[in-house]
Amino acid sequence: SSSSKILIKGGTVVNAHGEEVADVYVKDGIIVAVKPNIKVGDDVTVLDATGKFVMPGGIDPHTHLSFEFMGTETVDDFFNGQAAALAGGTTMHIDFVIPISGSLTAGFEAYEKKAKKSCMDYGFHMAITKWDEVVSKEMEIMVKEKGINSFKFFLAYKGALMINDELLLEGFKKCKSLGALAMVHAENGDAVYEGQKRMIELGIFGPEGHALSRPSLLEGEATARAIRLAGFVNTPLYVVHVMSIDAMEEIATARRKGQRVIGEPVVSGLALDGSGVWDPDFVTAAKFVMSPPIRASGHDKALQAALSTGILQLVGTDHCSFNSTQKALGIDDFRNIPNGVNGIEERMHLVWDIMVESGQISVTDYVRITSTECARIFNIYPRKGAILPGSDADIIIFNPNSSFEITAKSHHSRSDTNVFEGRRGKGKVEVTIAGGRIVWENDELKVVPGSGKYVEMPPFTYLFNGIDKADAEYLSSLRAPVKRFKSTD
Amino acid sequence: SSSSKILIKGGTVVNAHGEEVADVYVKDGIIVAVKPNIKVGDDVTVLDATGKFVMPGGIDPHTHLSFEFMGTETVDDFFNGQAAALAGGTTMHIDFVIPISGSLTAGFEAYEKKAKKSCMDYGFHMAITKWDEVVSKEMEIMVKEKGINSFKFFLAYKGALMINDELLLEGFKKCKSLGALAMVHAENGDAVYEGQKRMIELGIFGPEGHALSRPSLLEGEATARAIRLAGFVNTPLYVVHVMSIDAMEEIATARRKGQRVIGEPVVSGLALDGSGVWDPDFVTAAKFVMSPPIRASGHDKALQAALSTGILQLVGTDHCSFNSTQKALGIDDFRNIPNGVNGIEERMHLVWDIMVESGQISVTDYVRITSTECARIFNIYPRKGAILPGSDADIIIFNPNSSFEITAKSHHSRSDTNVFEGRRGKGKVEVTIAGGRIVWENDELKVVPGSGKYVEMPPFTYLFNGIDKADAEYLSSLRAPVKRFKSTD
Amino acid sequence: SSSSKILIKGGTVVNAHGEEVADVYVKDGIIVAVKPNIKVGDDVTVLDATGKFVMPGGIDPHTHLSFEFMGTETVDDFFNGQAAALAGGTTMHIDFVIPISGSLTAGFEAYEKKAKKSCMDYGFHMAITKWDEVVSKEMEIMVKEKGINSFKFFLAYKGALMINDELLLEGFKKCKSLGALAMVHAENGDAVYEGQKRMIELGIFGPEGHALSRPSLLEGEATARAIRLAGFVNTPLYVVHVMSIDAMEEIATARRKGQRVIGEPVVSGLALDGSGVWDPDFVTAAKFVMSPPIRASGHDKALQAALSTGILQLVGTDHCSFNSTQKALGIDDFRNIPNGVNGIEERMHLVWDIMVESGQISVTDYVRITSTECARIFNIYPRKGAILPGSDADIIIFNPNSSFEITAKSHHSRSDTNVFEGRRGKGKVEVTIAGGRIVWENDELKVVPGSGKYVEMPPFTYLFNGIDKADAEYLSSLRAPVKRFKSTD
Amino acid sequence: SSSSKILIKGGTVVNAHGEEVADVYVKDGIIVAVKPNIKVGDDVTVLDATGKFVMPGGIDPHTHLSFEFMGTETVDDFFNGQAAALAGGTTMHIDFVIPISGSLTAGFEAYEKKAKKSCMDYGFHMAITKWDEVVSKEMEIMVKEKGINSFKFFLAYKGALMINDELLLEGFKKCKSLGALAMVHAENGDAVYEGQKRMIELGIFGPEGHALSRPSLLEGEATARAIRLAGFVNTPLYVVHVMSIDAMEEIATARRKGQRVIGEPVVSGLALDGSGVWDPDFVTAAKFVMSPPIRASGHDKALQAALSTGILQLVGTDHCSFNSTQKALGIDDFRNIPNGVNGIEERMHLVWDIMVESGQISVTDYVRITSTECARIFNIYPRKGAILPGSDADIIIFNPNSSFEITAKSHHSRSDTNVFEGRRGKGKVEVTIAGGRIVWENDELKVVPGSGKYVEMPPFTYLFNGIDKADAEYLSSLRAPVKRFKSTD
Ligand SMILES: [Zn+2]
Ligand SMILES: [Zn+2]
Ligand SMILES: [Zn+2]
Ligand SMILES: [Zn+2]
Ligand SMILES: [Zn+2]
Ligand SMILES: [Zn+2]
Ligand SMILES: [Zn+2]
Ligand SMILES: [Zn+2]
Repeated sequence: SSSSKILIKGGTVVNAHGEEVADVYVKDGIIVAVKPNIKVGDDVTVLDATGKFVMPGGIDPHTHLSFEFMGTETVDDFFNGQAAALAGGTTMHIDFVIPISGSLTAGFEAYEKKAKKSCMDYGFHMAITKWDEVVSKEMEIMVKEKGINSFKFFLAYKGALMINDELLLEGFKKCKSLGALAMVHAENGDAVYEGQKRMIELGIFGPEGHALSRPSLLEGEATARAIRLAGFVNTPLYVVHVMSIDAMEEIATARRKGQRVIGEPVVSGLALDGSGVWDPDFVTAAKFVMSPPIRASGHDKALQAALSTGILQLVGTDHCSFNSTQKALGIDDFRNIPNGVNGIEERMHLVWDIMVESGQISVTDYVRITSTECARIFNIYPRKGAILPGSDADIIIFNPNSSFEITAKSHHSRSDTNVFEGRRGKGKVEVTIAGGRIVWENDELKVVPGSGKYVEMPPFTYLFNGIDKADAEYLSSLRAPVKRFKSTD
Repeated sequence: SSSSKILIKGGTVVNAHGEEVADVYVKDGIIVAVKPNIKVGDDVTVLDATGKFVMPGGIDPHTHLSFEFMGTETVDDFFNGQAAALAGGTTMHIDFVIPISGSLTAGFEAYEKKAKKSCMDYGFHMAITKWDEVVSKEMEIMVKEKGINSFKFFLAYKGALMINDELLLEGFKKCKSLGALAMVHAENGDAVYEGQKRMIELGIFGPEGHALSRPSLLEGEATARAIRLAGFVNTPLYVVHVMSIDAMEEIATARRKGQRVIGEPVVSGLALDGSGVWDPDFVTAAKFVMSPPIRASGHDKALQAALSTGILQLVGTDHCSFNSTQKALGIDDFRNIPNGVNGIEERMHLVWDIMVESGQISVTDYVRITSTECARIFNIYPRKGAILPGSDADIIIFNPNSSFEITAKSHHSRSDTNVFEGRRGKGKVEVTIAGGRIVWENDELKVVPGSGKYVEMPPFTYLFNGIDKADAEYLSSLRAPVKRFKSTD
Repeated sequence: SSSSKILIKGGTVVNAHGEEVADVYVKDGIIVAVKPNIKVGDDVTVLDATGKFVMPGGIDPHTHLSFEFMGTETVDDFFNGQAAALAGGTTMHIDFVIPISGSLTAGFEAYEKKAKKSCMDYGFHMAITKWDEVVSKEMEIMVKEKGINSFKFFLAYKGALMINDELLLEGFKKCKSLGALAMVHAENGDAVYEGQKRMIELGIFGPEGHALSRPSLLEGEATARAIRLAGFVNTPLYVVHVMSIDAMEEIATARRKGQRVIGEPVVSGLALDGSGVWDPDFVTAAKFVMSPPIRASGHDKALQAALSTGILQLVGTDHCSFNSTQKALGIDDFRNIPNGVNGIEERMHLVWDIMVESGQISVTDYVRITSTECARIFNIYPRKGAILPGSDADIIIFNPNSSFEITAKSHHSRSDTNVFEGRRGKGKVEVTIAGGRIVWENDELKVVPGSGKYVEMPPFTYLFNGIDKADAEYLSSLRAPVKRFKSTD
Repeated sequence: SSSSKILIKGGTVVNAHGEEVADVYVKDGIIVAVKPNIKVGDDVTVLDATGKFVMPGGIDPHTHLSFEFMGTETVDDFFNGQAAALAGGTTMHIDFVIPISGSLTAGFEAYEKKAKKSCMDYGFHMAITKWDEVVSKEMEIMVKEKGINSFKFFLAYKGALMINDELLLEGFKKCKSLGALAMVHAENGDAVYEGQKRMIELGIFGPEGHALSRPSLLEGEATARAIRLAGFVNTPLYVVHVMSIDAMEEIATARRKGQRVIGEPVVSGLALDGSGVWDPDFVTAAKFVMSPPIRASGHDKALQAALSTGILQLVGTDHCSFNSTQKALGIDDFRNIPNGVNGIEERMHLVWDIMVESGQISVTDYVRITSTECARIFNIYPRKGAILPGSDADIIIFNPNSSFEITAKSHHSRSDTNVFEGRRGKGKVEVTIAGGRIVWENDELKVVPGSGKYVEMPPFTYLFNGIDKADAEYLSSLRAPVKRFKSTD
């Protein structure tokens, strides 16, 4: 078909490692050439990118499509959620498989099924919510047979997903042996539970109670703990949704000391302050409810600063979208408001506006934090995250002189609200190419259910480089066992 | 008797708030006058303190006499351990009552019995090792009827004393409501357990395995966690045996932010480095085994520095003395070496030498960190911790121009080893007066079993000042509950 | 006269080291007894303090009375400024002598003359604004003959008071040798100068330009520098008017490492945020102009927190009062607005309200940070800063159940504005006794010019304790000079 | 000639952004192809790199060849120093032009002449040692006409190179306007001078006096100051030779807050501890004398850790080599020992051993910190620092299974000593290609004087991206000038 060959002409091609004016030639879903003045035949669709940036499609490392949670299910499934992503310039996401009754295999199969309708490429992380020999064995299967190279542990959601330090240590050890990346949702779940009780006792039942029940110090605590335990096991750690200065500073300190810790802010944490849940309108207030909460003004700027210098490494969304009917489950008690905000469609635009337009980062950095670093961390670079010959043809054409506006009226999520409602800024994703096909152009989506592919992610990503040598150095540093005599009198 | 009236003449009387040359007149166990040139009758024992310091007897906030632990019992009981203390210038200690099968009452009664033979004054902390309504009720009884105003929680000793964060939060809340001070042994017990397994797997069974299994980052972790959870509850916290820079820096940061956290280094952590457990002689190596471990060189100096400027507040010992036969229980496995070192007799001399002789603190500071601050924290000041009219006559005469030497051959503990063996320094406790009686003079003890009194410690010590007002400020800062309307379409 | 003997009955007497219900008996300007139930004759003025606090009068460590500065002179001289102080419960202050053409002697003589009309006790710091042998010699005279034990160095006010690092090091060394305390005004003067030029270039001539030209990072820089240079010389350091988190954190870090650094916040920095200089009314905006500037919201709370835990030690005012006519010198250029705010009258009330009423500190802490610690640092304790037999009779009776309100209409400063205008709070200084005379009672002042005495302050205050020993330890740590051979081939 | 076409076959080609097994084809000094299985004709020199790494030649950002300093001149000139570099796998360096009597032009011309004999490519930084309109104008000429894009300011070397804060601010502003990178040698020169006097007074004349006179706190101070002043001007900063934890932590903090600060450790600081200057043999001790000094053990590991996570970005050498005769100028006074150590030949091997062999970084990171990041910072990427089509053919073939040993007997510097004497490790640069010519193979150099080219470095490197936007944001944040009315009564 006409879409199997595409030539993108005259744009500034941006990779994380550099930019150049060049043409990009795509054939059968693969980038086959990146150089100036490529000549092609008549059967090639030609896109003019003069004066625009040609960049790798975004990769969202943190989403929850078709997620059954808190008695309901997110409104965006693998088809429409991905369609929204594509409209916003994101061409791949990594979703979290949730085990079913603790079974990883059952969970994986359920997500395989959910994802059948995909219209863009995707990968999976796997959550670990209990611990026994079966789980341990299944982790091995997931890594060796199913293309999963990361496992997430929840230090919050007491009574549901939360695990304790003993399990966390077991999980970290298993991850290390498999070359899989350990991820954490870092809030102290016991204290959150206590905080929730406190709010109820104070007669605070509204959405503001959600934020008040889990202040940033509890995120700092859990982040500090997870980092130290990962350091104790000597395995890399990925902290999802870094929302606060407290957590960020723990990551900064660990990195300064040489520890391999990845920090993922999410676009809601970068772009918003926490005032939303105080809105007198419940529908408005409830839409901002997510965990960890969006923090007070000041945290956003601090996270941006840390992101600009590589203290934090990549941006996710935690896209987990509920409509106002679902949010209303918690009309009488914030604890029943399904946690989650949107972002999969908005991330690329907002990160551009907040980070590049403000002068905090360069365009190459933008590619790095929205796409390349994610691909590197999850070991699929340079297939993903790069515009290089041989890479998958996941590409966006971005016009820095255009502009965007966000509103629930026109977004592609099924939700009837948007936490970024009314936000405008500079820059616009004008074309999205996914898997070699033009799926977004002239503000129109052309997406096909089932066209998205599952991307297997191999273990032992770059974060594991040298871990064995460092372990050997550690052992030789112990000066043990000491050869002993017994003193006699 | 002749000892009921004592006049100490011509010394420099030192309180935490100042020093002056004055006489001190003691009658019936109480200090009745502190001023120059006191005239007395012939029935008064006169001690010449010219050129010497007259200071409040030391108070050791952290001891374990007659402690049943790890399948054995410490060699020093309430009589001989206290005798050793008196020989070293300490005139009161606070010991830890351990519940029996979780019963606080049973534990308290057992310790009451152990303490009958006391030859100096003493108080009790109470350990909390499980949680239910009975424990909660017993805590109240302990505070309101038994004279206990502090409860200790263990974040280590998994499977034995360790409690989890949920219990810790409950405990903190109960402490707050009772005006009792929460104390923590701060090491991550799950990780320590993991570290111990690791050492065994590595074939490291000797005492060095003890230190290697519980590095300072695990102390830092637990300290950070306890501080944040206490902050979340807004109740004061007392961190026992601060052994590492990691823990100290957490305390420093919390205090900088206005949190009420007390840090107690112990004399072994201030005076020793951690090389002892690498000694090729098991007896020598094993005597240094305590938890948290004595850290590598560098931690000692950093703890001293923090102590000198009030970042840490007072010095304890964790005196928990086992002889070499007991230590040999772990000859094949460090996990079975009873944890504990001596210090009750050595603390006053070593702190003088390390802190005052080195120029790091003044003599008034010395009184503060060895006596007054402990009395203030546990709400028995100025009865204890001061040389003021009305205070108990617990007094030492200290000669800064004399010198001391420590050796198991001459110490008063029943242990056959001493972790400070061979240590010499300047200064000497020449006279100890306890309860108005001269109990140490001319290197001789004159102690009487049963002469020591139990000191009840009332709740709501100064650390609780204003907590209610701060809570009220917190509540008014919440801007909640928000008055809500529901938007309609 | 009737005022030579006073009995204060039934109050709670508060010292930094404790509180008790007791009577206080004053005779001939001295406290002669502090104990319950003192019986006196008819010639004694009796004040009932039941239900009230009887505390040492405040000591303000940082004032500028009759200060010739920026082409004008402060409106409050040694008589009326002190009268205002007394009305607010402050009974002593330490003012800064400014050399005349670099001459310390001339400066001292000028201030001696200015102070003749004093109605309360006072002491002097001395500023050092240039360096040569004469200055060095005069410093010695000031310490040995004139009762001065502290010297202040300005790192700001380029072209006027500012000195460079070379002079600062010389000054620190001289201070150390004399046992005098080095003080710094810590802002980077070169950068402030640059910042001022920048504002002018931007067309910003109003009072907000003052704050914008000297952001908190410049205070942090100079504080960090002064601390490290003082540490290099190993002499104690006193940082005046700590206004920012930046400066406070440097002090906190230094103290954690054992360095003797004193941090003095001032009441304007604790009680105000920096929004004042943005006021559209010039008169209002200009009255807030001081250096370093009052910082944005957030700095105030952080300073309060650090003060509550002893990271900062005492509170001053930098009282340096200009009326609106004088402030109008800078109507066209903020650089010409005389720098300075009031506070000498308000400090005691505001510190009570901000620190005690909010629950951040206890009443004993209040005495410590408003009076005792100042007396200790400047070596006049317990003559000042205490209610003890033998102390000067500088006493206030404070009613915690009354209230205060601040307004230029009723204050005792000569200024026509007040930076705390309209502020209300709990607590009231009902009686002030200075030098044994009741000078403030029933909202009326009874002050006599010339009744105030100059308080000589001896060198080698407690901050110098052990410095010689620490120096000796340092020297022995050098392992130098190395005995060398020369290798031959 | 035979060397004009080279094919490197079968190696693992490593760039900072990824590695792949590929052939590299070089023609006329340029890399023309990087892909598997390149076929070439008989006129091509073929090098087999199977099992080896093919990497960009090292770029040393910090050298001093033919440097006249402290009354003598470094032994390594632009020919033999570069030859040594090539033998060690470094194919470009950036040297520091020193103005002559303050004249940048004269300095530049002198260095142009010195560099005529070059056998590898090189660039120049320019030192700024005084300030006037001429210097300011010359800076512009250097940037616009001479290919210099960085200027170095010395905060040490009082009386010689040192400048004060006023000049530093002027220099920073000028750098910013030109798009040139400001660099600093960060030690407090006034305090160093004081420290030197102190040592002399203590009778310490030997090399250990050098280290003792300038402790790490003085490096921390100057680093903190330079960072803050650069932040105040909002221009990027490059800190040369980061030798201490003190300096590194300042950089880490600034980066966490979003400031653009580059930290350059040098190989002597990463590989050595500071014990060398205590050696009883003067020749040995003196060879370690450099500024800032090599620090005590602990600093090295901390710098490595920070380097591993990108807190520090690239590694230099400060190669500044004097032989033992020259070092003997300071036989009687350490202040006369010419400051400087070697490293240009050893850097690539030592960084591999310390950072990669120890497991701290990956091979791609190795390329980044030894070559790519330097090229990016100085705006010559991807001409330098990459193995990409179009890049200069500066390439090394590195055998990770071979080994190296360092000794003055066989090194290529003219010095008769080597600070890394006797050091062995894994890995070996087997072939060096510079400018398309094989210059090092089979342990033999084939270098030609004059074959090296001057590399002009354009201004406005990536560190300047968005600075203008950030400045605009800053201005709009000022809320100034305020529109004012004057209040009337
Ligand atoms: Zn989560
Ligand atoms: Zn999530
Ligand atoms: Zn313990
Ligand atoms: Zn204990
Ligand atoms: Zn000032
Ligand atoms: Zn002042
Ligand atoms: Zn240098
Ligand atoms: Zn250099």
